[in-house]
Amino acid sequence: MSQAVTMEKMVAFCKRRGFVYQSSEIYGGLRSSYDYGPLGVEMKRNIKEEWWRSTVHMRDDVVGLDAAIIMHPKVWEASGHTATFNDMLVESRTSKRRYRADHLIEDATGIDAEGLSPEELTKIIQEDDRVKDPVDGGRDFAPVRPFNLMFETYMGPVKSDENLAYLRPETAQGIFVNFKNVTQTSRVKVPFGIAQQGKSFRNEITPGNFIFRTREFEQMEMEFFVEPGTDEEWHEYWIEERWNWYLNLGIREENLRRYEHPKEKLSHYSKRTVDIEYNYPFAGWSELEGVANRTDYDLKQHAEHSGENLEYIDQTTNNRYYPYVIEPAVGPDRIMLAFLMDAYTEEEVNGEERTVLKLHPRIAPTKAAVFPLSKKQPVSTIARELYDDLKGDYRLFYDDSGSIGRRYRRQDEAGTPFCVTVDFDTIEDKQVTIRDRDTLKQERIPIKAVRDRLKDLISG
Amino acid sequence: MSQAVTMEKMVAFCKRRGFVYQSSEIYGGLRSSYDYGPLGVEMKRNIKEEWWRSTVHMRDDVVGLDAAIIMHPKVWEASGHTATFNDMLVESRTSKRRYRADHLIEDATGIDAEGLSPEELTKIIQEDDRVKDPVDGGRDFAPVRPFNLMFETYMGPVKSDENLAYLRPETAQGIFVNFKNVTQTSRVKVPFGIAQQGKSFRNEITPGNFIFRTREFEQMEMEFFVEPGTDEEWHEYWIEERWNWYLNLGIREENLRRYEHPKEKLSHYSKRTVDIEYNYPFAGWSELEGVANRTDYDLKQHAEHSGENLEYIDQTTNNRYYPYVIEPAVGPDRIMLAFLMDAYTEEEVNGEERTVLKLHPRIAPTKAAVFPLSKKQPVSTIARELYDDLKGDYRLFYDDSGSIGRRYRRQDEAGTPFCVTVDFDTIEDKQVTIRDRDTLKQERIPIKAVRDRLKDLISG
Repeated sequence: MSQAVTMEKMVAFCKRRGFVYQSSEIYGGLRSSYDYGPLGVEMKRNIKEEWWRSTVHMRDDVVGLDAAIIMHPKVWEASGHTATFNDMLVESRTSKRRYRADHLIEDATGIDAEGLSPEELTKIIQEDDRVKDPVDGGRDFAPVRPFNLMFETYMGPVKSDENLAYLRPETAQGIFVNFKNVTQTSRVKVPFGIAQQGKSFRNEITPGNFIFRTREFEQMEMEFFVEPGTDEEWHEYWIEERWNWYLNLGIREENLRRYEHPKEKLSHYSKRTVDIEYNYPFAGWSELEGVANRTDYDLKQHAEHSGENLEYIDQTTNNRYYPYVIEPAVGPDRIMLAFLMDAYTEEEVNGEERTVLKLHPRIAPTKAAVFPLSKKQPVSTIARELYDDLKGDYRLFYDDSGSIGRRYRRQDEAGTPFCVTVDFDTIEDKQVTIRDRDTLKQERIPIKAVRDRLKDLISG
Repeated sequence: MSQAVTMEKMVAFCKRRGFVYQSSEIYGGLRSSYDYGPLGVEMKRNIKEEWWRSTVHMRDDVVGLDAAIIMHPKVWEASGHTATFNDMLVESRTSKRRYRADHLIEDATGIDAEGLSPEELTKIIQEDDRVKDPVDGGRDFAPVRPFNLMFETYMGPVKSDENLAYLRPETAQGIFVNFKNVTQTSRVKVPFGIAQQGKSFRNEITPGNFIFRTREFEQMEMEFFVEPGTDEEWHEYWIEERWNWYLNLGIREENLRRYEHPKEKLSHYSKRTVDIEYNYPFAGWSELEGVANRTDYDLKQHAEHSGENLEYIDQTTNNRYYPYVIEPAVGPDRIMLAFLMDAYTEEEVNGEERTVLKLHPRIAPTKAAVFPLSKKQPVSTIARELYDDLKGDYRLFYDDSGSIGRRYRRQDEAGTPFCVTVDFDTIEDKQVTIRDRDTLKQERIPIKAVRDRLKDLISG
């Protein structure tokens, strides 16, 4: 078993192989903002596609949605974000740096400061002299104040209060405000879910850890509407489903655990929240995905603030009620980091070191590479024909430069699960060799069988 | 041939069938902002996937990228957006309404006012008394002033100039600033392209026409880097490629035309731009896609502003140069509207009216529907098994309620190209009927052959 990869190594690897670049790098970079390169964009697309396939297409009880990022400002009043989506901010007067007050206290004293009021936090900071500015050691802090994490902007040419708008801090609200539209136009019946993928924005005071926490990030959220009283059972069901999703895609079970949010720290809308945590080497156990029982809080809030009746009407019993909501919520960026960390391996093969990304074939950026053993005809022509025949199905890579060994190493690093080699024997026997990235085993099969064989291997 | 559908009818249809809803509708809606419902999100995903497949996966010379929406502000100085990405704004002092000055003048007088300076526009408005406020007929206008279309926001807790950031008004710049990263990490050689999909934002003074022009919209842009001198040829090549993309996906050729931008109206970076226009029933010929020769303008601007050398080095000849760039740029929202308009048909079938969306199978939200003729076993069990077997491949729909005729009509409206019916004969002969949405022809084939047959029909 390989040693856990460090964050430093992963960041360098991601850049070198075109997975992730720092955003606006030629301008000195934008803090905690990242761009996905040619391999990274394919991997992220695969994660999103796999989530959509399993959450929407494979199920009869979930439909999709794609709501706008900028919504009506009243949405955020109703959801509680305008009033309470705050971090506690403290500024050091000596260094002019700004910190999250709870983190500053926790790091210096070990006191659990989450959820304390600005006044309580200010008091601790002033009285406990272990709390110091990490930059200059100073203890001259301004009073703690709440800072709302929603990005603000203005729609239209006038910067007036009536034109103030927010970039959504979560995709979930786009689902709640469309609940009535979906139930009226899609013949869905409780229990059912609405799934959505898209960008969200949170103006974090201290983002960090590469693509783990960024101000601009992508979310995949599904709101599953159930009859009150069945919510606890469905909650367990979805925790289990989501847990298995990771295992089915090859995440090592010893790197996953459940974390039960303590009752007193639950969000205002939540009855119970369970995180699926991943053991990130750089941070230890941290949230990968949250599965929350949001109760009927959001629908009732929107009903109250909009004046619309958002009750669900059971057509069979004529019962009317506000459904409870179970929400599995996760970010593909964070999943990608977990998959990369979990898959990154340095190992010795036949006396040589190799770096290999042991990604599940469904997640791997490139599904297969096609190598002609020689650039000469007819070997190269046969390889080319095979490549052209398959490339409409998924991302393939054609490589005819360098030794086969070097070509294998390049694909190992890229996480490509299968390499298909056309050699001189192929001219006669019409067979090619498929090499498995992880087992290194090679099988020889007819060219005509490659499509079906790869299809089986990839979906496996 | 059916009559062209009106915009009013299309908007109502899109809502009724869950393609497109007005955003934040329960709060009175957000002007010119739309959410995609269960069928709409699938259709839009198909459009994006089909573009990605044909532009990236099917080609050896194009790689993908996914850059952040919020980039370093210097990016927009270099690109020219900070200085010149303006609309000319005029406010009526009587109604307090704001208009695009060039549009106001053009609508009232027929004078071509595009590209005129604020002073020139102000002069025309003051002197030509045909120009009136469309709301109240007033002629008391404030002087015309340029209004920058980039949405502004602030990163971090302090609203200072140094924290000012913009929501990108185009995805293209994310490609240019990553040019060096991609060439250094992806073994690409000129001529090659970098493709990207994602949201962009423009604070339009007068958005409108449903999803044709919205402030928040999605883009699919590809920057194709070529050796100077070969740019005109490549430009023609890409106009042709993109034209054929629409035809291959079933757009009627009589609804497409090329529009050559007049030399004097080209954007500051463009040597030549050709639009592919679609004959939208509500607006006449309007831009569907733009294919521009952006020259070496952007790379040189970023080299100058960042201090980085962004020349391309030809490894074979050791030549260094700034590549020219050919850019096909389009929005999936606008494509979706064209596909919907083109496909919407009301026609008589066997003496009955039907509404049918004649969408290409690759674009259709649902690829196939499975109907058991009866809810009883074993017909329903056989249908269910078939459905479960196929649903991992693409979006399927299972429907066992109402008459077969009604079920067909529902799928016709949803644009589902194929309906597979399991009937009582199936119990004996193990065969099912596949019905074609457009020809209404039915073929009877073995259950075991359905997967391959549908695959052929869908990719057809």
